[in-house]
Amino acid sequence: MGLMSETVTQIVIPLSALVGIVFALVQWVIVSKVKVSVGSGVDINGYNDRLIEEQEDDDQQEEEGVDPDEAVAKCAEIQNAISVGATSFLFTQYKYLGIFTIAFGALIFLFLGSVNGFSTQNQPCTYSKGNICKSSLANAFFTTLAFLLGAFTSVLSGFLGMKIATYANARTTLEARKGVGKAFIIAFRSGAVMGFLLAANGLLVLYVSINLFKLYYGDDWEGLYESITGYGLGGSSMALFGRVGGGIYTKAADVGADLVGKVERNIPEDDPRNPAVIADNVGDNVGDIAGMGSDLFGSYAESSCAALFVASISSFGTSHDYSAMSYPLIISAMGIVVCLMTTLYATDVSEIRNVTQIEPTLKRQLLISTVLMTGGIALVSFLSLPSDEFTLFDFGTQKVVKNWYLFLCSSVGLWAGLVIGYTTEYYTSNAYSPVQDVADSCRTGAATNVIFGLALGYKSVIIPIFAISIAIYVSFSLAAMYGIAMAALGMLSTIATGLAIDAYGPISDNAGGIAEMAGMSHKIRKTTDALDAAGNTTAAIGKGFAIGSAALVSLALFGAFVSRAGIKSVDVLSPKVFIGLLVGAMLPYWFSAMTMKSVGKAALKMVEEVRRQFNNIPGLMEGTAKPDYATCVKISTDASLKEMIPPGALVMLTPLIAGTFFGVETLAGLLAGSLVSGVQVAISASNTGGAWDNAKKYIEAGATEHARMLGPKGSDAHKAAVIGDTVGDPLKDTSGPSLNILIKLMAVESLVFAPFFAAHGGLLFKIF
Amino acid sequence: MGLMSETVTQIVIPLSALVGIVFALVQWVIVSKVKVSVGSGVDINGYNDRLIEEQEDDDQQEEEGVDPDEAVAKCAEIQNAISVGATSFLFTQYKYLGIFTIAFGALIFLFLGSVNGFSTQNQPCTYSKGNICKSSLANAFFTTLAFLLGAFTSVLSGFLGMKIATYANARTTLEARKGVGKAFIIAFRSGAVMGFLLAANGLLVLYVSINLFKLYYGDDWEGLYESITGYGLGGSSMALFGRVGGGIYTKAADVGADLVGKVERNIPEDDPRNPAVIADNVGDNVGDIAGMGSDLFGSYAESSCAALFVASISSFGTSHDYSAMSYPLIISAMGIVVCLMTTLYATDVSEIRNVTQIEPTLKRQLLISTVLMTGGIALVSFLSLPSDEFTLFDFGTQKVVKNWYLFLCSSVGLWAGLVIGYTTEYYTSNAYSPVQDVADSCRTGAATNVIFGLALGYKSVIIPIFAISIAIYVSFSLAAMYGIAMAALGMLSTIATGLAIDAYGPISDNAGGIAEMAGMSHKIRKTTDALDAAGNTTAAIGKGFAIGSAALVSLALFGAFVSRAGIKSVDVLSPKVFIGLLVGAMLPYWFSAMTMKSVGKAALKMVEEVRRQFNNIPGLMEGTAKPDYATCVKISTDASLKEMIPPGALVMLTPLIAGTFFGVETLAGLLAGSLVSGVQVAISASNTGGAWDNAKKYIEAGATEHARMLGPKGSDAHKAAVIGDTVGDPLKDTSGPSLNILIKLMAVESLVFAPFFAAHGGLLFKIF
Repeated sequence: MGLMSETVTQIVIPLSALVGIVFALVQWVIVSKVKVSVGSGVDINGYNDRLIEEQEDDDQQEEEGVDPDEAVAKCAEIQNAISVGATSFLFTQYKYLGIFTIAFGALIFLFLGSVNGFSTQNQPCTYSKGNICKSSLANAFFTTLAFLLGAFTSVLSGFLGMKIATYANARTTLEARKGVGKAFIIAFRSGAVMGFLLAANGLLVLYVSINLFKLYYGDDWEGLYESITGYGLGGSSMALFGRVGGGIYTKAADVGADLVGKVERNIPEDDPRNPAVIADNVGDNVGDIAGMGSDLFGSYAESSCAALFVASISSFGTSHDYSAMSYPLIISAMGIVVCLMTTLYATDVSEIRNVTQIEPTLKRQLLISTVLMTGGIALVSFLSLPSDEFTLFDFGTQKVVKNWYLFLCSSVGLWAGLVIGYTTEYYTSNAYSPVQDVADSCRTGAATNVIFGLALGYKSVIIPIFAISIAIYVSFSLAAMYGIAMAALGMLSTIATGLAIDAYGPISDNAGGIAEMAGMSHKIRKTTDALDAAGNTTAAIGKGFAIGSAALVSLALFGAFVSRAGIKSVDVLSPKVFIGLLVGAMLPYWFSAMTMKSVGKAALKMVEEVRRQFNNIPGLMEGTAKPDYATCVKISTDASLKEMIPPGALVMLTPLIAGTFFGVETLAGLLAGSLVSGVQVAISASNTGGAWDNAKKYIEAGATEHARMLGPKGSDAHKAAVIGDTVGDPLKDTSGPSLNILIKLMAVESLVFAPFFAAHGGLLFKIF
Repeated sequence: MGLMSETVTQIVIPLSALVGIVFALVQWVIVSKVKVSVGSGVDINGYNDRLIEEQEDDDQQEEEGVDPDEAVAKCAEIQNAISVGATSFLFTQYKYLGIFTIAFGALIFLFLGSVNGFSTQNQPCTYSKGNICKSSLANAFFTTLAFLLGAFTSVLSGFLGMKIATYANARTTLEARKGVGKAFIIAFRSGAVMGFLLAANGLLVLYVSINLFKLYYGDDWEGLYESITGYGLGGSSMALFGRVGGGIYTKAADVGADLVGKVERNIPEDDPRNPAVIADNVGDNVGDIAGMGSDLFGSYAESSCAALFVASISSFGTSHDYSAMSYPLIISAMGIVVCLMTTLYATDVSEIRNVTQIEPTLKRQLLISTVLMTGGIALVSFLSLPSDEFTLFDFGTQKVVKNWYLFLCSSVGLWAGLVIGYTTEYYTSNAYSPVQDVADSCRTGAATNVIFGLALGYKSVIIPIFAISIAIYVSFSLAAMYGIAMAALGMLSTIATGLAIDAYGPISDNAGGIAEMAGMSHKIRKTTDALDAAGNTTAAIGKGFAIGSAALVSLALFGAFVSRAGIKSVDVLSPKVFIGLLVGAMLPYWFSAMTMKSVGKAALKMVEEVRRQFNNIPGLMEGTAKPDYATCVKISTDASLKEMIPPGALVMLTPLIAGTFFGVETLAGLLAGSLVSGVQVAISASNTGGAWDNAKKYIEAGATEHARMLGPKGSDAHKAAVIGDTVGDPLKDTSGPSLNILIKLMAVESLVFAPFFAAHGGLLFKIF
């Protein structure tokens, strides 16, 4: 037994979660101090600040003929429009998801219940031979319940994230009047609200569920943690639809708005005359924010479930060592504390004085949290794990390990995350040569830009793959599948910081959009642009984390699935496995084809509508008439809800079909294939898109001699850069980030249905 | 024993090869009847034909002010320039390849010789326990010799193909004056010359080598066929450099020519004023023709070697059944006969009257050859294989099979090839909706075109992967690795027809280029354009075959490697294997990044040179001054030779490093990973590129109401289509087709070095 008693564990975990929630609320209160209403005057501090800025900026603003009060009123109005649009879309989406969740929940119950013919009799345990475990029917019921809980938490995470982001965007715009430092802090604090709320919420719900389930399961930990895996499935299936639906929504609007606005009509991005501009900004919040929130929550839930499941059939489980069993949850609890300290550094210690400091500050967040967390992991490993040897399940055998093995497993994942984050930053930030080379290739037009961008994306895969491989090798060798799950959790332990800097991106993007739409001064727009450029990079970093952790999570789930399905080896030299591997490697392409084509089709519709409005609404181009934003919102909504079904069905049905008809071996091959292929496609798609976006921003900002040579806005090189940016949109915000959900969702689904497949699967091979 | 005696086998194989060579020469003689010289008058028939056409076309030609005699003289001149350029590039390339071949040959000798410390003592056999086999040193020597032979044959195949293509291109142009039927036949016959020469040559050299090696090896078939695998390695390593070098050459020129000519200067493709135009046309011959020739020859050599090696350690080998042992070679011999009949149908039975018949005729070639070959395989299986049961090596055990099992294995590969070919045609021909959709997306600009094109490429992977999976499952289940090798050979059995319709593409492309450069009439250009559009599709089909067969070949080689390295299972659940799988799946991306960036960089240089010439040479735009073609040729040559080294090194060194430092298990994972991932990247890249090219041609040709709505040349939609086409160039002609060489080359290299890795590999894991 470790040094930490069960009672301490039972206190530490919920306490950390509560601390995280309180911290998030404090940040929220600080953000809310910025008032988005004209002359409210209640908050004297904010009001005075605003006056000061107005006077400083007076000349310029008058020059542009924008009245400051009017600008604030406009900000409030736009913010409201975005918030209402996002909320209404999410509620519509949730209606569909509700139906899906109930239907799929029923499916889970039926499939798993049928394993022993819906018998209510207790049964011999699968792993701890000789003991008696709960009936399959009970497992089916609790798995379904966990699935519903996971789905609900995931949806809640996404929704809260969206609410925070739409609350923060206009506030960031207004703070931008006081300078880059203030604006940065507001955007960052808002990101932190989301990050901490999600991390703490995920931990808390999981903790509470386990304790409630335990009331029924008692000593049957095997059944308990097998049921808990449903939580991960619920989380990730909502994330899939969130990402795909949100991704199609946002990119249909974005691509449609850009194609007519920037390319045909030569008006700036986010110009209020563009009818698709509200839909575009709504999209950022439902796709990048709500989708990302659900996604990372899913990864977190799944890696916890994978670790817990493996632990339950290891010596922790059989000897009922509660603290050691809760090791994954304590690591996450420690992560919240570490991230809290890290965030304080950014908000209260360092200060940003000019735009060049934004990216280094965000980067430093990653480094600080990683260094602190390494110490945190060491502490947790020392306290909660047995100090002598213990054993972990390793595909039928038990592997003897020591506590520092698990320290190494979690740490290697954590540091691999940092390497992935830094590599992503290098390939997508316009401060380095890769993006500058892509920008330079715009000199010869859009074609070379696309070629260079694709090549950059492919190249950016190399280092992350080596980092993931090393993490896998070390943790796999030291502690088998449990090690992999802990490496994943290590990478996700700083999820609060990761989400904070990730959410920072779309918030800044929205802030820029609001500044443009409200007709604020060039100086403010320049500040928000700089925030946004850094945001593109951090969004790419967030996606890098999401993909890297998804790879580890999927592998851990894969291992848990293999264990649960009773497979002894997944031999590539078996034809059943090999065809699974080959077809699995194809799935990311099929999925990407669907999602990209969906965006393309929806964007075409959007283009036609935007063109129609420009042609048919008199005075629209002159700014004297208002566009019909609602029709564009409707096009995005309809397209997203309709088009998310086929890719969703592909992901949800493939494991069921493969498992039922071809059996667990082919399914194992399929999972391995989609994992190793999907990671590459996802990383390259995200980075290519991020690089194109920032290559465009590099030319627009004109901060260097080279950039000015390529620019200004409207030059041929800039036009070529816009085309690249548009191509990158569905890659980086729809297909790329959805792929990591594809790989982990198929794995967790296989794990949940493993008892059924093991009992009744492989029909086709049984017949022949 | 089968019905065919050894003597009959010894006669049938070389005889078929000779028949193939004679048939190729007959076709050559027919092609050479078209004279490319003014007023030579020797061939009265050709001369008269030419006069008739001139009169018919008189009005139009006078209108355009082109004198027919002058046009013929120009054709001759351009053909000569292309041929001289291609020959000179290939010779320069061969100098580099010569150095590489000698160095790598030495490496093979040293590595393999060191297995038993360079001992000349005979040793116990690896598989047929108790017998005595030749020394490792002897095997090292003969493997090296086979490597050199394979390299030489591969280079020869490529060179002959290029010679034929450059001989045929102007002849096709001139025949285009007599109508589409005549032009088609000349282009097709020329393709047939190449197809039959390569197929027959490959078979003959392999047959002769085996018989010569046998003089030394005698009864040691195990050693004999192990050494023969060097032949495949030699063939594919030359193919790699041919494809990569040629691909960079041709696309640097093509992209560079298009970016300045079509986009900036608004002059047509292949306009003689464009300084890069000769380099572009040279490139088609060194990349598409010579590279493709080497590539398919490599696949053929490798699948034969893989089948022969597995057979040698099966009952065929141990019971010294020569006819059964030669089953793969007899299948190839039968293939030559079947393709001969198929070709006769196209050249002598059917006739093409208008452009819409071109594609169906080429498609029918595939179908006819497949149907006939199914009968051929049945016959060969019945005659050459033992009529009762026999056994095949199956990873340490012997699997009992019957002759009709092998009939099924070969046939399923053959038919999978047809499915791949037809699917490729569907996705890349502008007669069907996928390409038309891509063309339609040009309405909203280049960005949507690129998005739709990428999505099309991803989608086009689905059916081929299922076809390959079925072929793998059936053949793997029936006859283990030997079955896979036979499926690959089945797919390649109709290689003569496949190469004929593939080579037809670049020949027609060149013919169109020559027509434009020689200033021939619009009617002729329209004919050659139609030939070329069909050629884009057949080139994509050829690539589909190359990739599909490469997948099967690699798997067969992989199986042979695993057998030779003494691995019992390649378990994904082992960390060593899994990281190999993950890194292997990354390699195609790394490789693509390198090759695409190389093309991009070289194209930028080309653009600068072309711009410089347009700016600095007075009268160039007006057509009164000649451009400096030679400098452009030099840029392509230099770039290609320099840039082919890093990707080449990546492919050649990876198996050596993985095997030496990480051992055979990681290497096995690596091969499986690169196989399952590379196939997807390769298929999608080829088809995306082909679709973009044909979407552009669809708009240009304006054959339908829809196409006319998008056109004409120079419209916004057309400009967007040109950008897509340019992006697709490196995808379809450089990185895509090189990838299939990557996967099979790494596999054959691993197989050749397997004895070394098994003895001394895995240093790193041994140390820790």
